[in-house]
Amino acid sequence: MSTSLEPDDEVVVLAHEQFPNRAKTAVGVLRYADYDVTAVLDRACAGDTVDDHVPGVSDAPIVAEMADALDVTDPDALLIGIAPIGGGFDESWRADVRAAIEAGCDVVSGLHYFLEDDDEFAALAADHGVDLIDVRRPPEDLTVSEGRARDVDADVVLTVGTDCSTGKMTTTLELVAAARERGIDAGFVPTGQTGIMIAGWGIPVDRVIADFAAGAVERMILDAAEEHDVLFVEGQGTIVHPAYSGVTCSLLHGAMPDALVLTHSAGRESIHGYEDFAIPPAETYVDLYENLADPVAPAEVVAGALDTRALDDDAAAEAAVDDYADAIGAPATDPVRFGVDQILDAL
Amino acid sequence: MSTSLEPDDEVVVLAHEQFPNRAKTAVGVLRYADYDVTAVLDRACAGDTVDDHVPGVSDAPIVAEMADALDVTDPDALLIGIAPIGGGFDESWRADVRAAIEAGCDVVSGLHYFLEDDDEFAALAADHGVDLIDVRRPPEDLTVSEGRARDVDADVVLTVGTDCSTGKMTTTLELVAAARERGIDAGFVPTGQTGIMIAGWGIPVDRVIADFAAGAVERMILDAAEEHDVLFVEGQGTIVHPAYSGVTCSLLHGAMPDALVLTHSAGRESIHGYEDFAIPPAETYVDLYENLADPVAPAEVVAGALDTRALDDDAAAEAAVDDYADAIGAPATDPVRFGVDQILDAL
Repeated sequence: MSTSLEPDDEVVVLAHEQFPNRAKTAVGVLRYADYDVTAVLDRACAGDTVDDHVPGVSDAPIVAEMADALDVTDPDALLIGIAPIGGGFDESWRADVRAAIEAGCDVVSGLHYFLEDDDEFAALAADHGVDLIDVRRPPEDLTVSEGRARDVDADVVLTVGTDCSTGKMTTTLELVAAARERGIDAGFVPTGQTGIMIAGWGIPVDRVIADFAAGAVERMILDAAEEHDVLFVEGQGTIVHPAYSGVTCSLLHGAMPDALVLTHSAGRESIHGYEDFAIPPAETYVDLYENLADPVAPAEVVAGALDTRALDDDAAAEAAVDDYADAIGAPATDPVRFGVDQILDAL
Repeated sequence: MSTSLEPDDEVVVLAHEQFPNRAKTAVGVLRYADYDVTAVLDRACAGDTVDDHVPGVSDAPIVAEMADALDVTDPDALLIGIAPIGGGFDESWRADVRAAIEAGCDVVSGLHYFLEDDDEFAALAADHGVDLIDVRRPPEDLTVSEGRARDVDADVVLTVGTDCSTGKMTTTLELVAAARERGIDAGFVPTGQTGIMIAGWGIPVDRVIADFAAGAVERMILDAAEEHDVLFVEGQGTIVHPAYSGVTCSLLHGAMPDALVLTHSAGRESIHGYEDFAIPPAETYVDLYENLADPVAPAEVVAGALDTRALDDDAAAEAAVDDYADAIGAPATDPVRFGVDQILDAL
């Protein structure tokens, strides 16, 4: 799966009424993608600029609709940067997608609703010679893992977590960037739709047939190991998740990492969306992940990443990070607040 | 998913050139299904009877093709009782399937190749008003687990294993039969194609989208718990399998069992088909399964089931079972050789 987005491409990101706080994909793309975001569509804050809401990334105008974006930029693609619960397509976006296709833009989407299966969009895209790229549709030719990922030459680092949404993708991307700054030939292995849109390639492991999930991860590892010396693999879910643990387990045994980075969200006490399921102590996770990895391909939790967004001041965040490091018996940091040097040093 | 097979139905089982040793589904159906197998198709041993090869089950003629079967029985269905590597449809079976449909039989298949997607069979089935039932096609409306299986009134027992093909389905079915003999209202929860064909319902968990695998298991548990006091859930794979561990993990956290029965195959030292991956000591599995279950829904390994087919005499088998019981710290048996009373007592 490739999104066909190139580093020099200009991209418009759709994030209606959800930018920035409920637009995880849009913000991820702004922060980490190589291509240029030249406009954001959000009718709720049109007239503002990206910098008003997300400082520290390349600035761009926020406009109300695709037609407005086409007045200020000549984009190569429109990217759907939000995902309603359930992953459906919001009909209020139809005019924007139509306008993008008519302007010769590819459209990149991570929705469960596949644009390719939408009769109007499919016909229009054919007329205008553009691609509809549904990154959540897995390749057709996946198969079972052969158990080969542990044999690759590259070092493989997998982020794991105490829950969903604990910063696995962010930590992974920060590690890639920092490693490259140190001159390390680091590769990012994306496993979810946002990561895939940022990187321009990848397989959405959660959408793969369960028997093929580890095989999908293995394929990505084997491919990426040809290109890089160190691979940072985006983890998913948590090994104690009532619904998604199978995906986490497939990632652990499919990637066969050499090292694990355990992510956690400060103050979270129960599984997000499953509040009757308590999050066990961090040291329990260290044992679970290491013991489960061991018979297949041994890996240690070598560092921790704590999301301290919930804590107001740096002193409290620092104390929380210290406590977390003690709990897991390894160095820890908040990748966003304090950087990832401690993790890289531990690796 | 229902196969529509009823207890009084007469069924012909296709097992060309593989009966009985490479016909796991055919033999499973003969041994455990409620409906009557009235003929087996195997051109390699036509003229024999089932009893010549599989003593102890209801006897039936083995014939060379469907036309011969129709001379001796008036079946309701043809069931594909073998699965070539890859799960494809062998064209040498086409005449049999055609003859079955033309005789008004439903056709039940667990192949990856869906009969419903075969143009000739689909048209013929429509003409003759029969159903093509692809048990490996999961329902369209699956979704994520809500984490509710631990709340059901029924007691839930899950078979887990040290590898694939260690007797999980057999152990589960023997437990159901023995529990019913004791007057317990026991239900079987099938999770693979053979179990589904035997039981006449179920979801093939390995074919489900990874994100929905635990949800598929949960749905079956919630449904079956309405009907029975004790549920015996057919396990899949092993938690340390390089390719299939994700399915195993989804079963553990989707079913949220109260008790686990650990199956193993005597003498096996490496993962079947993945010979570079050693099978760790049995006690390691006890810890792995129990520790992984604990944060979601605690469950203990209360008994073991050892497949001792590889051992010639009963004395050696008994010694192996004793060693296995010591290793896992729980009672053990070989369900086929010695029955499952010890497991039921432990439950």
